[in-house]
Amino acid sequence: MNASETQWSEKEREIARKAFDRAYRLEIENLIREAKEKLNTITEAGDLWNLHDFLSAKRYDIDGKYDDRESSLIFVLAQLIQEGLLSKNELEGLTSEKQTKIAALSRFN
Amino acid sequence: MNASETQWSEKEREIARKAFDRAYRLEIENLIREAKEKLNTITEAGDLWNLHDFLSAKRYDIDGKYDDRESSLIFVLAQLIQEGLLSKNELEGLTSEKQTKIAALSRFN
Repeated sequence: MNASETQWSEKEREIARKAFDRAYRLEIENLIREAKEKLNTITEAGDLWNLHDFLSAKRYDIDGKYDDRESSLIFVLAQLIQEGLLSKNELEGLTSEKQTKIAALSRFN
Repeated sequence: MNASETQWSEKEREIARKAFDRAYRLEIENLIREAKEKLNTITEAGDLWNLHDFLSAKRYDIDGKYDDRESSLIFVLAQLIQEGLLSKNELEGLTSEKQTKIAALSRFN
């Protein structure tokens, strides 16, 4: 990647930080809703431990996902778009190279 | 302990097994209700992870608790009574020595 993709100005870091915050809040809201839906159908121990396993996996995933090192930001933002937790227009203000790279990466997988 | 406290007839093992089953079901029902109550008040990540920690601790506790080895039965049954998961009259049919021992142990702690 060239400098305009890897170097982040103060303003760009602020855009990324806000995007992370919004995506994180949305992901947690979705997770709470999903946990409530699962819990409402539960009547026995096996189902309860399945919900516990589900929360364990989600917690591990979320703990690792929001990596805000500059070298990771492009990839994490692309993943958040891919997962529907962020829209491209929330990245306005980043260099066009970064926006293009993020959009391209978000179409992978 | 003497033999009437440590040796379990087939009939007594069946009484203990049924007592375990009932206590386990009640404990899981209580836990599901408690998890629902907690989850209904949750709006942010920290609270959700607190619920996850709570379920982790309960799962660990419950996994270890229902130890049905004959050498453990007296103590586990006493603990279940102490925790309100079992009533003494569910132990009718055990030798009076076992019932007395369990009742005495259930008053400790």
